Amino acid sequence: VHDRTGAAGGTAAEVCAAPLRRADLHASVSDPALDTMNFLNEVTARHPGAISFAPGRPYDGFFDVEQVFGYLRGYLDHLKALGHAPEVIRDHLFQYGPTAGRIRELIAETLRRDEGVDVPAEAVVVTVGAQEAMLLAVRALITGPSDVLLVSSPCYVGITGVARLLDVTLGTVEEAPAGLRCADVEAAVLAERGAGRRPRAFYLVPDHNNPLGTTVPEATRRELLDLAADLDILILEDTPYRLVGSERRLPTLKALDRGRRVVHLGSFSKTLFPGARVGYAVADQEVDDGRGGRGLLAAELTKIKSMVTVNTPPLSQAVVAGMLLAAGGQTTGHTQRSSAYYRRTMSATLHELERHLPAERQRELGVRWNRPDGGFFLSLQVPFRADDAALARSAEDFGVLWTPMSYFHPAGGGENAIRLSTSYLSDADIVEGIARLVRFVEAEAARTQKGQPTW
Amino acid sequence: VHDRTGAAGGTAAEVCAAPLRRADLHASVSDPALDTMNFLNEVTARHPGAISFAPGRPYDGFFDVEQVFGYLRGYLDHLKALGHAPEVIRDHLFQYGPTAGRIRELIAETLRRDEGVDVPAEAVVVTVGAQEAMLLAVRALITGPSDVLLVSSPCYVGITGVARLLDVTLGTVEEAPAGLRCADVEAAVLAERGAGRRPRAFYLVPDHNNPLGTTVPEATRRELLDLAADLDILILEDTPYRLVGSERRLPTLKALDRGRRVVHLGSFSKTLFPGARVGYAVADQEVDDGRGGRGLLAAELTKIKSMVTVNTPPLSQAVVAGMLLAAGGQTTGHTQRSSAYYRRTMSATLHELERHLPAERQRELGVRWNRPDGGFFLSLQVPFRADDAALARSAEDFGVLWTPMSYFHPAGGGENAIRLSTSYLSDADIVEGIARLVRFVEAEAARTQKGQPTW
Repeated sequence: VHDRTGAAGGTAAEVCAAPLRRADLHASVSDPALDTMNFLNEVTARHPGAISFAPGRPYDGFFDVEQVFGYLRGYLDHLKALGHAPEVIRDHLFQYGPTAGRIRELIAETLRRDEGVDVPAEAVVVTVGAQEAMLLAVRALITGPSDVLLVSSPCYVGITGVARLLDVTLGTVEEAPAGLRCADVEAAVLAERGAGRRPRAFYLVPDHNNPLGTTVPEATRRELLDLAADLDILILEDTPYRLVGSERRLPTLKALDRGRRVVHLGSFSKTLFPGARVGYAVADQEVDDGRGGRGLLAAELTKIKSMVTVNTPPLSQAVVAGMLLAAGGQTTGHTQRSSAYYRRTMSATLHELERHLPAERQRELGVRWNRPDGGFFLSLQVPFRADDAALARSAEDFGVLWTPMSYFHPAGGGENAIRLSTSYLSDADIVEGIARLVRFVEAEAARTQKGQPTW
Repeated sequence: VHDRTGAAGGTAAEVCAAPLRRADLHASVSDPALDTMNFLNEVTARHPGAISFAPGRPYDGFFDVEQVFGYLRGYLDHLKALGHAPEVIRDHLFQYGPTAGRIRELIAETLRRDEGVDVPAEAVVVTVGAQEAMLLAVRALITGPSDVLLVSSPCYVGITGVARLLDVTLGTVEEAPAGLRCADVEAAVLAERGAGRRPRAFYLVPDHNNPLGTTVPEATRRELLDLAADLDILILEDTPYRLVGSERRLPTLKALDRGRRVVHLGSFSKTLFPGARVGYAVADQEVDDGRGGRGLLAAELTKIKSMVTVNTPPLSQAVVAGMLLAAGGQTTGHTQRSSAYYRRTMSATLHELERHLPAERQRELGVRWNRPDGGFFLSLQVPFRADDAALARSAEDFGVLWTPMSYFHPAGGGENAIRLSTSYLSDADIVEGIARLVRFVEAEAARTQKGQPTW
């Protein structure tokens, strides 16, 4: 039928294929959240002089490239001190290594020292950032279209991304102005069940969350664990901002978890080394294989990891291990300076906001914000639609950037709020940036009061 | 309803959750291929003295941990020579960096030098090994249950894993004894269409494939490209063993591709540094967004990557870049010794097989094998069921391990074949290992002829 004597023809498929249509690609690539982030990136690129409260970027002033050489050397020396032969040490660095990771024992030890979380090394899976850990946990737990993942909303775009990627149905629990309410979680679970769906887990970031910057109080943490037991669901606890926050840390959900209800997700990206991309999942839940065998959920996550990245780069694990060992097996040994830094930039930002907008003016304008004592983010309620058009005006006319809170609401909402990131700006930029932001807010408020359209 | 005054109670969820049932987890974790690999791992652990032709492990005798320090330094010096300020260099290593990767330009240049593949840097997405590249490509192209991915079978377990993870329907094109036939690919595409499904792409490893060790001849490559154009499908070309093979390399499908039919997947794991976990996808296909915009498929894969790993570790990219730069921007500068090594171990294995089993004995027994001129694998047809029970007898009674070919057949088949990996054994192990293997094959053949059960 076709003449395909290619060796003779020599000009294989000369005619260029017609373009693929994006509509013929998987829905994950047309995620509206990604398109809005693109808009933010474009506005940022168009206004290089603007002061940006948008990116949740770790401060890098404490990094030094020479440290990487030292930490890598420290890990290799450690392996030598353990009595490993040179070829074994070489394999630790160069070969693939076990899919669950080479430094599980060290991470388990770090969790004991940093957090009082006591789990066996077998419960730990080392991942390429917490993003992969989310992917593994969601993939394991969601088996089909009637399973639902509940998320505290607004929420981190990474978890909505995983849901999109895996065609997983999300249910949202809107965080109330006073904070997350267990009654709302319970209502959401019961509503899903009433609709014939099966909520498997509830995802949240209990400490200094992205995007709101709120922290769940200890009483609510305990209540949430009791609720999870009562309702027979799991909790996915994500903790990226945990050790860059308040001096007075609350116990993690995992530290309080007596019933193995919590799958704990962690990352060293905000605390040790973003460019290593090392995170982890702690999954000590028992799994019954139906043939009399018992294993840990971590082993099932490891199988899934073999289909995603096979291994977290042993090179990255080696450098992170070197960092942990240098601080006596603790993350907190590295985070004192940086967490103090983040507390200071947050406090400076809040101070500037108060200075420009004292209580009375806040009431008049209808502006309010929360007051985190650390972490990267705070949220600001404003009396106008904080949408892309408003962001464009803010950049163009006032030279200040921020992130619309609506980007973080998977089911709509957040139209009158913005996320401010305070993680990496200098004192001077904070002073000038908040001055600009307040001018923008005043102008928008005036514009809205005058009945102008807020397109 | 529930008493959840947790702060007072203090003993949140004391009762341990009932175990999860594996049947309530996603099907990917009960993949039979993974269970069989577990069996292989168990047999291997039970017989530490056995000589193993099972793992496709890169030879590491040419690695030296000190090289890592040098390559990292080389990359940093390169950035300095380009005129980057110290804080920019620091960011290259420590910060997340762009999702599509920091070293796309260098990889595009390497593809030009190594392979004569000329694509813009924007067509490259740097990934955590080729595994993530497969995941991105399959996720982009398969939009729902009526879309099908065709694979050359037997095939690499990584691609079946991706299909399992994403609930993607696989169609198989069995490789004929004389090699892959385009007529079979065409028949498979037409059969899928006849059944109302939409085959989007055909996945294959054209060079020294895993598990068979076969290489697709140049004429078939050209024919395959013409067929892809005629049938309007894409080709996923995976190339892990490409630069560790024959001295006489055939052009890649991508080098012959004039119609942008080929999404090319690559890895530095077998050529430069397994422990860096750096791979890439080349996707220069145009995508029409339906609103007048045009972009490359690589940009869509990048969006998906933001939901999987966010970034390939910049640290890993830096070391790989240092290695490429040290060899004048070429992979081949590093692979001469290792590819010669693999050719030698392959040749030694083939020599031992011939020595023990001359042509006449091969015919009597009903044994035959292919004769790759490089790469990691060869396949052996045997006159008995090469299943787990046979593998257990081989380990127990003969002290030699191999991989059942059936592990690599997603739709059944391969029951009378085994995969031998020759990539990392010493000469002495090859001589002794093949002697043991031949004793095992002779014993099984005798056992089968005597009509014994082959449970």
